[in-house]
Amino acid sequence: MSFFEHVPAVQYEGSQSDNPLAYRFYDRKKEVLGKTMEEHLRIAVCYWHTFVWPGADIFGQGAFKRPWQQPGDAMERAQQKADEAFAFFTKLGVPYYTFHDTDVAPEGTSLKHYIENFSRMTDYLARKQQDTGMKLLWGTANLFSHPRYAAGAATSPNPEVFAYAATQVCHALDATLKLGGDNYVLWGGREGYDTLLNTDLVRERDQFARFLNMVIEHKHRIGFKGALLIEPKPQEPTKHQYDYDVATVHGFLRQYGLQDEIRVNIEANHATLAGHSFHHEIATAFALGIFGSLDANRGDPQNGWDTDQFPNSVEEMTLALYEILRHGGFTTGGMNFDAKVRRQSVDAEDLFYGHVGAIDVLAVALERAAVLVENDRLEKFRQQRYAGWDTEFGRKILSGGYSLSTLATDALARGVNPQHVSGQQEQLENIVNRAIYAQR
Amino acid sequence: MSFFEHVPAVQYEGSQSDNPLAYRFYDRKKEVLGKTMEEHLRIAVCYWHTFVWPGADIFGQGAFKRPWQQPGDAMERAQQKADEAFAFFTKLGVPYYTFHDTDVAPEGTSLKHYIENFSRMTDYLARKQQDTGMKLLWGTANLFSHPRYAAGAATSPNPEVFAYAATQVCHALDATLKLGGDNYVLWGGREGYDTLLNTDLVRERDQFARFLNMVIEHKHRIGFKGALLIEPKPQEPTKHQYDYDVATVHGFLRQYGLQDEIRVNIEANHATLAGHSFHHEIATAFALGIFGSLDANRGDPQNGWDTDQFPNSVEEMTLALYEILRHGGFTTGGMNFDAKVRRQSVDAEDLFYGHVGAIDVLAVALERAAVLVENDRLEKFRQQRYAGWDTEFGRKILSGGYSLSTLATDALARGVNPQHVSGQQEQLENIVNRAIYAQR
Amino acid sequence: MSFFEHVPAVQYEGSQSDNPLAYRFYDRKKEVLGKTMEEHLRIAVCYWHTFVWPGADIFGQGAFKRPWQQPGDAMERAQQKADEAFAFFTKLGVPYYTFHDTDVAPEGTSLKHYIENFSRMTDYLARKQQDTGMKLLWGTANLFSHPRYAAGAATSPNPEVFAYAATQVCHALDATLKLGGDNYVLWGGREGYDTLLNTDLVRERDQFARFLNMVIEHKHRIGFKGALLIEPKPQEPTKHQYDYDVATVHGFLRQYGLQDEIRVNIEANHATLAGHSFHHEIATAFALGIFGSLDANRGDPQNGWDTDQFPNSVEEMTLALYEILRHGGFTTGGMNFDAKVRRQSVDAEDLFYGHVGAIDVLAVALERAAVLVENDRLEKFRQQRYAGWDTEFGRKILSGGYSLSTLATDALARGVNPQHVSGQQEQLENIVNRAIYAQR
Amino acid sequence: MSFFEHVPAVQYEGSQSDNPLAYRFYDRKKEVLGKTMEEHLRIAVCYWHTFVWPGADIFGQGAFKRPWQQPGDAMERAQQKADEAFAFFTKLGVPYYTFHDTDVAPEGTSLKHYIENFSRMTDYLARKQQDTGMKLLWGTANLFSHPRYAAGAATSPNPEVFAYAATQVCHALDATLKLGGDNYVLWGGREGYDTLLNTDLVRERDQFARFLNMVIEHKHRIGFKGALLIEPKPQEPTKHQYDYDVATVHGFLRQYGLQDEIRVNIEANHATLAGHSFHHEIATAFALGIFGSLDANRGDPQNGWDTDQFPNSVEEMTLALYEILRHGGFTTGGMNFDAKVRRQSVDAEDLFYGHVGAIDVLAVALERAAVLVENDRLEKFRQQRYAGWDTEFGRKILSGGYSLSTLATDALARGVNPQHVSGQQEQLENIVNRAIYAQR
Repeated sequence: MSFFEHVPAVQYEGSQSDNPLAYRFYDRKKEVLGKTMEEHLRIAVCYWHTFVWPGADIFGQGAFKRPWQQPGDAMERAQQKADEAFAFFTKLGVPYYTFHDTDVAPEGTSLKHYIENFSRMTDYLARKQQDTGMKLLWGTANLFSHPRYAAGAATSPNPEVFAYAATQVCHALDATLKLGGDNYVLWGGREGYDTLLNTDLVRERDQFARFLNMVIEHKHRIGFKGALLIEPKPQEPTKHQYDYDVATVHGFLRQYGLQDEIRVNIEANHATLAGHSFHHEIATAFALGIFGSLDANRGDPQNGWDTDQFPNSVEEMTLALYEILRHGGFTTGGMNFDAKVRRQSVDAEDLFYGHVGAIDVLAVALERAAVLVENDRLEKFRQQRYAGWDTEFGRKILSGGYSLSTLATDALARGVNPQHVSGQQEQLENIVNRAIYAQR
Repeated sequence: MSFFEHVPAVQYEGSQSDNPLAYRFYDRKKEVLGKTMEEHLRIAVCYWHTFVWPGADIFGQGAFKRPWQQPGDAMERAQQKADEAFAFFTKLGVPYYTFHDTDVAPEGTSLKHYIENFSRMTDYLARKQQDTGMKLLWGTANLFSHPRYAAGAATSPNPEVFAYAATQVCHALDATLKLGGDNYVLWGGREGYDTLLNTDLVRERDQFARFLNMVIEHKHRIGFKGALLIEPKPQEPTKHQYDYDVATVHGFLRQYGLQDEIRVNIEANHATLAGHSFHHEIATAFALGIFGSLDANRGDPQNGWDTDQFPNSVEEMTLALYEILRHGGFTTGGMNFDAKVRRQSVDAEDLFYGHVGAIDVLAVALERAAVLVENDRLEKFRQQRYAGWDTEFGRKILSGGYSLSTLATDALARGVNPQHVSGQQEQLENIVNRAIYAQR
Repeated sequence: MSFFEHVPAVQYEGSQSDNPLAYRFYDRKKEVLGKTMEEHLRIAVCYWHTFVWPGADIFGQGAFKRPWQQPGDAMERAQQKADEAFAFFTKLGVPYYTFHDTDVAPEGTSLKHYIENFSRMTDYLARKQQDTGMKLLWGTANLFSHPRYAAGAATSPNPEVFAYAATQVCHALDATLKLGGDNYVLWGGREGYDTLLNTDLVRERDQFARFLNMVIEHKHRIGFKGALLIEPKPQEPTKHQYDYDVATVHGFLRQYGLQDEIRVNIEANHATLAGHSFHHEIATAFALGIFGSLDANRGDPQNGWDTDQFPNSVEEMTLALYEILRHGGFTTGGMNFDAKVRRQSVDAEDLFYGHVGAIDVLAVALERAAVLVENDRLEKFRQQRYAGWDTEFGRKILSGGYSLSTLATDALARGVNPQHVSGQQEQLENIVNRAIYAQR
Repeated sequence: MSFFEHVPAVQYEGSQSDNPLAYRFYDRKKEVLGKTMEEHLRIAVCYWHTFVWPGADIFGQGAFKRPWQQPGDAMERAQQKADEAFAFFTKLGVPYYTFHDTDVAPEGTSLKHYIENFSRMTDYLARKQQDTGMKLLWGTANLFSHPRYAAGAATSPNPEVFAYAATQVCHALDATLKLGGDNYVLWGGREGYDTLLNTDLVRERDQFARFLNMVIEHKHRIGFKGALLIEPKPQEPTKHQYDYDVATVHGFLRQYGLQDEIRVNIEANHATLAGHSFHHEIATAFALGIFGSLDANRGDPQNGWDTDQFPNSVEEMTLALYEILRHGGFTTGGMNFDAKVRRQSVDAEDLFYGHVGAIDVLAVALERAAVLVENDRLEKFRQQRYAGWDTEFGRKILSGGYSLSTLATDALARGVNPQHVSGQQEQLENIVNRAIYAQR
């Protein structure tokens, strides 16, 4: 009997429903700006937090003890886990899921075992996808949990570790193609350093670039049409991770000429750990031309580690979705719930509460963002604010029509004396709140 | 009579001196690794914190009331300030100083006044330099205090503000050349945003790049041989500054092809506000090939704003100087004290205590760093740690001899099973402490 | 002509109004849980940010240049400022204001001047109150801006500074009584330290307690019936402030037996600077029995200083108001906007946008909080969660019926083996969001 | 054969020794201010990080795989672990160790098993202590790892969890008495909340106070003469812990009248996570009369979680030891290394490097702090700074000789006009650095 047997499929019941296991806002076929909510949001459930994590934290043992986490034959448990995962996906009614290689298949005790197990399990997942209609938003490889990766994977001081990692990514990328995944994600969990004292930054960056080049070449060779995505994170478990934030990844890609091949998967909690708002990281990725996909979660503003909580702020998500809508929406990307229930939330229902609440938050935020975008008063204000740059004088500066000294001479001759005008931040914030709270 | 009349010139008196106004470690002619302390450290005093700041903070009025800050004829006060500044520099016995245009000359009420005042005052400074032997480490322009710059300078929505800023930088760069400055620094105090809601990131980045290109062209045209330096800072006074940290500046330079023309001036307090160690920012700048110069100060680890305190940690500065020494030392750069005494420290002597203590910290750190570098056990450990990458296998990977799939095939064939080896962080930290504390 | 002449009085126009200078939600006479919005929220405008602050920050000059900030006769300017302030209060349609002594009257050059000026200006304010119906939520004294207070006021190393501060508070408390104020606030802006090296913590705490005792005695003697409130803040401008947070103030009050005489005025931005949520500080104050009043503002989650922005998160404010409603609402306290427009927001309208948006946020939050409280499912869950403590066993423990060893003996005998049950955090968070977003 | 067989006992070899496994500064019998280094520092090794932790982190599996962490009979493994622990303690040559109940004995599957196992293992430890001369600095109970404690121990919503915790503490305190421990520590790892939404702060605080009262009563009844210590920590694993920092614990103790029975065990890393310096927390504990003992470690200034690294800053530890020396030194307390090697440091030697380096840091810091205290120029400066409070005027204020209004009248009559004098922070910081770096 399924672990989720007693939980009915989650349905849209409208905002006045009292049912904690119903959607109040996520009506997947509802149209918003010409696409359905489902098409806009492209929601994915992740395998690792929801089916692999045992409810342990750094100070406590696993509290969950799911049936598939009990001792037993590893491959049988993996299939049981897949069965339960797809039962959950289906009851939740979302279109996508995501996984690491080692989430779905036992690593075994050698590369050979790993490859065999992973191949069998991805065949199994293919059948589950066919049976259920679920799709893969992205695949990835876990290059950080095993002790061999203690000092990094591509950036390990040991080239054999690099080779092991390359093997995993090769198979994970092949599997992502096999399963029709829309993207492949690289999260460099230990691509960074614990101390500068034992670290050669130049070598490690070069190794990492080589690794990425190999992945890019492989992607093209096997005909994978999805996007390659790097997921920025500033630190944890390492002291400092090379993919610190969107701007840092951008510099790295530019240095090695990879900016047209790799985009970013931005996680809300990683953004805030890096000292940025989620909105900032998304807007920056669009400005730099490397926006890819989102890990929809949240951190705790008072805690300094990756709490990976379910997103629950419509206010924050409205700004995220405003950026996405005004740039045309997701292409290959989507909203992956890289989020886990709290360790105290041990019940099967809690997994539903976490996802249902978060999905409703995204649905409300989507509708509010659509209001903002439809008659984009923010954009109109911006255009008016920068209008001077569209005059002849502004264009001449931007197109190189002045040198520093000719511009200085011109400014002096004209007695330039610009006055500051209001940036109207408070009014713009009110416009956003009006879109959120003054809904008809 | 000089404000500093009663303070004698600061002399080196050795570590056992009881004189609070003597150097105990900074013996400027003492040789360390073939250069004098003075040549290594290239210490500069800044004009703004020490002579311009009135001892105000966001909750309190100016507490200092220096003679040159009293009401009076602006140009006379500016000359009095310069006289006192050079008296201070001379008594302190350091070779360099630094300034913003508006630190040394009154802005007046128009561009014309600004230019005239600045020209007269930099002539005055030239004479002071000649009289005293003082040199200019770098010049810069203040593009953030006047209300016209409330929304940025190069990144202002108003091109006339860009033109005003260009005029200031043109004159400040010319003046830096005239005064024999070794570098020119661009600190974009408000090149950033207060809210994304009114900001066009693409436009502002393009404007900033245009500005830098104009500065580069001007530099070459006038024959300025010094370095152009950008000073990263993450935020304050803006919510977010575009020159967030070294890696962010690197990405920006790469995007616009400026990485060979511009380097970074790294400030310790800005590094920590950005979530990095000073050591990290310096090591990163060297790894990215854009290291320029340092603002030697410190923040308060418990306070979230730019406290600009005098550096007082030998432990921290030893690591900074270790990076610099092992990369061959400063070229155009140096150690600028972008540091101010606390608002409570109202006496003339306090200005000396702040600088004397900090200079001694740098002197001790230089000697300890020299011990680390001379027989560089850290570097030996690093070379041994990455030795696998110098084998045929490692080189083949790095040189593109493998694709992802051929490497995977090879790894499987060989049954690769790498084991983690110790990174020895604790022993390496002990080596550093030994260099600092087990001095003969 | 008034600076605000061209701005019409702000009216409630309903949620669909397009007028940026209208309330969309704040309908002051609307009843919520038996009281009007006005009675619930007790909104106050502060004098200092809105009428005194010149639009300066630590890197920039004043950008506002209000008419009453121009040079001129100090008392005339103070009256002009009061006229404009009351014009603003009236147009905004809020019932309360707040001030520091030095906000409303020029300090002059001696204690004698200070007292005379302050007395004349508070007479003037009394007339303004009578003319407009405005009321004073609280008064306070500025014991931090003048250089005499650089090392603290009550905690100064100099008892004459203590005496000066006592004089100001004596007159400010008398004025608060005269003006019918509901509370008197003590914000110890520099009651803390810049360095432990020159600080005697025991002495300074004793001095502070003595000061408070004197204020308490004075309050009772003059018959002031309002509450005395301490405003916690962790740091800035000092490195560390003694009134760090609610729990720290509580410990201080307990140590000196003041917990029945003094309550807290909690500021949102100070809460987050201290590493707490606003919700936490409010809930803690109620739990400790010292809740008083609120400074309604917000910080920037990515900036480490006191940005004092207008509150704009309904999500955050709903939790704040939920705590207040379930504890019976404000008594003497209220919602004071200790908030300022951004330095870029230089227009008269911006002052309205900031307040209007924030007031609407409070109005929406009040209605949402009322939904949460009316059928308090959170409270029901909590009661059920702790139900074990209401059993005989639980009560016996709490009432001292067991010693450690008898309880251990009993637990062993009974083979106690408690299992963790779900804390249902995700479902509870969904309940909150439902109250906010599923409004009929 | 012992895991540490190949490592020789660590000896003092003097500052010029090249042996990474020798002390360069810790000469345990060397006298400093009339006591030996060993007597001053009272160094303890902790069981949990060094012998229990498997080298796992939140993103990675155990990397250490010590012999005693292999599968096997639980009690045999526990004895093997104890043998190795005491072999390590002895080779390191430190006088104390510390443990949690579940570090040293298997929990088993019931309270009965727990009690039996713990009793047998503490008998075993007693024999090991006799054989080696090792002493117990403090014992404690692990009330946070098992899932039953997911919602707290004393503050659990379930009184049976309280009873289970009481049983553990009863036995752990009895064992501490049996083993001659000098203190008993209470670290409330989950005494706090994950969300306020499901938490009753008043109930939980009352429960916690009841628990402490039971512990105090038991201590006295069994004749334990050591100190009871609470260990403050702000958060992690919970969102917020009730024992946030020293000041918060103080308020709690005062509220329940426990301030004479319980002191604090301050951890450096917890101090910095709470937004304080280690120095601040120690100085505050002395000022409040509740100083007990120290957990000597450090956090990473750029990471927001409890990294528990070995202390390696003499600069920081000198200030800590200065406070301790000037207050008369430790009584029951000591320096417990609540510190772990990095996950990458997998070798037996790394455990020695971590401890040896840290012990040397404490030894240097002790000598530097002794220099500061012997001729305490900081204290002299403080006395002079507050001298005004020792005059008749100052004493009259402090003793209640003035009311607010008589002091105001007096101040006005005298025309009080105090001027700020320098706090000399920079000179005092130089004095500290001189003590550290200008050693003869």
